[in-house]
Amino acid sequence: MARHRAYLDYNASAPLIAAARDAVVDAMMQTGNPSSVHLEGRATKAILEAARRDVAALVNAKPDHVVFTSGATEAASTLLTPHYTMGRAPLRLSRLYVGASEHPCILAGGQFASEQVEVVGVDGNGLIDLEELRGFLAAHDRSQGLPLVAMQAANNETGVLQPIQEIGALVKEFGGLFVVDAVQAAGRVRLDITGSCADYLILSSHKIGGPKGVGAFVAVSDLVMPKSIIRGGGQEKGHRGGTEALPIIAGFGAAARVARERLNSGGWSTQMRDTIERGIRTIAPDATIYGEGVVRLPNTTMFSLTDTKAETVQIAFDLAGIALSAGSACSSGKVGPSHVLGAMGHGDGPGGLRVSTAPETGEDDIALFLNALKDIVARRDRSARSAANAA
Amino acid sequence: MARHRAYLDYNASAPLIAAARDAVVDAMMQTGNPSSVHLEGRATKAILEAARRDVAALVNAKPDHVVFTSGATEAASTLLTPHYTMGRAPLRLSRLYVGASEHPCILAGGQFASEQVEVVGVDGNGLIDLEELRGFLAAHDRSQGLPLVAMQAANNETGVLQPIQEIGALVKEFGGLFVVDAVQAAGRVRLDITGSCADYLILSSHKIGGPKGVGAFVAVSDLVMPKSIIRGGGQEKGHRGGTEALPIIAGFGAAARVARERLNSGGWSTQMRDTIERGIRTIAPDATIYGEGVVRLPNTTMFSLTDTKAETVQIAFDLAGIALSAGSACSSGKVGPSHVLGAMGHGDGPGGLRVSTAPETGEDDIALFLNALKDIVARRDRSARSAANAA
Repeated sequence: MARHRAYLDYNASAPLIAAARDAVVDAMMQTGNPSSVHLEGRATKAILEAARRDVAALVNAKPDHVVFTSGATEAASTLLTPHYTMGRAPLRLSRLYVGASEHPCILAGGQFASEQVEVVGVDGNGLIDLEELRGFLAAHDRSQGLPLVAMQAANNETGVLQPIQEIGALVKEFGGLFVVDAVQAAGRVRLDITGSCADYLILSSHKIGGPKGVGAFVAVSDLVMPKSIIRGGGQEKGHRGGTEALPIIAGFGAAARVARERLNSGGWSTQMRDTIERGIRTIAPDATIYGEGVVRLPNTTMFSLTDTKAETVQIAFDLAGIALSAGSACSSGKVGPSHVLGAMGHGDGPGGLRVSTAPETGEDDIALFLNALKDIVARRDRSARSAANAA
Repeated sequence: MARHRAYLDYNASAPLIAAARDAVVDAMMQTGNPSSVHLEGRATKAILEAARRDVAALVNAKPDHVVFTSGATEAASTLLTPHYTMGRAPLRLSRLYVGASEHPCILAGGQFASEQVEVVGVDGNGLIDLEELRGFLAAHDRSQGLPLVAMQAANNETGVLQPIQEIGALVKEFGGLFVVDAVQAAGRVRLDITGSCADYLILSSHKIGGPKGVGAFVAVSDLVMPKSIIRGGGQEKGHRGGTEALPIIAGFGAAARVARERLNSGGWSTQMRDTIERGIRTIAPDATIYGEGVVRLPNTTMFSLTDTKAETVQIAFDLAGIALSAGSACSSGKVGPSHVLGAMGHGDGPGGLRVSTAPETGEDDIALFLNALKDIVARRDRSARSAANAA
């Protein structure tokens, strides 16, 4: 095991920031249930509502429209349902349209039966095929219910940013509801729910430096809301039952506050990503960088090396002290071909390696990564030569 | 505000124990996603699995049969579903039978439509009417699917313990599945899933001294499992999607370990409850103590004072420095008649005040409570006398 390790897997889980840790510890020390009316209960309620304001501010939403969940997957499983209410009247959504390169929690379709889900293709750069989406929406039978479209703002594997405004305008043209999976985009690019065509944003705490186990969905208004799948004591204004996860919600709030300050002070730039990609190109001129030609997150590079399986390279990096992913980390230790690269038409390739960083990633981390890459490519080239000589 | 406060609301939320706090802090410092295959990912996975063993041990289950959730409400919402699988084959549950005094997260019926839910009455002591349950099960139409019965081991408001073995035997006689809400019983009385007729137990971390926001359901075997309502990356062996809430799961594990040690060393006795109830009887001989004649949790007393609304008394206690509940704390600050007392035939009374403790509750806490009760009763009697004089 290497002495110094470089953690370059922020898209899987970002290390906890200090402010979030402190908020968790402080909130843990507070006894009481936010639903209790005594002094202790009211103190926990105050912590909860402060966190709600911080999360709302990150995406310019109203605090009242933030519903805390146990994470993005629960938020997606809640929002992707045929059963909504408008006021108190039931509102039916009859079909779900998702992108081919979405996160598994969107592709799983939530409470929709699989035959109610249509998958919209992406191009070689990972961008949604808007014409295909238009075709689906034009063919949608509104007598059965409204269309629901769920797409991600930024892809977790490639960092490719979808044209959310354009997609949203299309959804509105056909009178649908639009769920935006903003998990990887939040805190890294500016998001404003009021200025977008999104009806709901999905957020995750541990991708922005908060603790794992908490997320939210944020609604542009609370007129139309999904029927809760977690039903109990009427918490979260009836939109999500269960005692609120106070300590980690407080941590999520702190992380959202720091993320907003960072965006405001220009903390993210593409400079680090450019350094990484220049390095990859120099060391392995035959490498493929996915989505290179389109707008991507400032922190994500997905690349592959010719003739070298990503899983093997990932292990080599791990042994050299670098934590990065082959594909995404969402499938519980499963490794296999990335559905994202498959959707982009690269399913037969060697698989992708994802490097994902944050402003606090150091130059020494990048140097460690590039040195390891050099060794890996040199080994590959040596074994290719000896195979050629043996032939 | 009183200088010294007595927290006597453990059934709403138990203060975090030190071992759980330390486990949360340690796990928070660990970067990585338990689904990642690199060193950081594997380290978090190890924390997760250690916690799973500790939670399993509390109820003598196999660690593999513990599914972590965001709390008991999610566990209930998952288990109370018509859609199960046996192996990979679908298994249909056509009707849900719940007790009238269950927690709202059971009464809500999970994924069952309200017309699929039957409510079984309780007697004046809060015990399930076994004959009524037998009647329901005998009339159940098995051609539509199996019966699902969900009942609590211990009532959250009164502490009354249901005859779980007897209920379970009845459910098995009619070939049903049996979900036991063990939230308030866990850690306070011994639970053994293998020796019971329960198919699933529901647990909550923050009722046993762990952090809020995490719970579990524990299956006696994993042959028959509910279809997940939170679907994503295949975590928890496909039974519950979403990145695991690592820090608070670690805290839950630590709390479960301490709870088991406490049970093994005889840490709970009815002595404190008896002191409290003797005190109530002495100060207010006309008080009603609910479920007094039946077996109850060692830590819970639900009582009411004649002619004095529970909500008013609760506020008086709060001002005197004592945190206790009027009814339960599950309904987000809502106060109103307790459905538990209503089910027991006391719906027209003044409402119940719940005192709930733990072995660490001090004699000074009990003294503070009894002194405040003395003042409250004296005030009540004074105003009754002046009303009588004025009449």
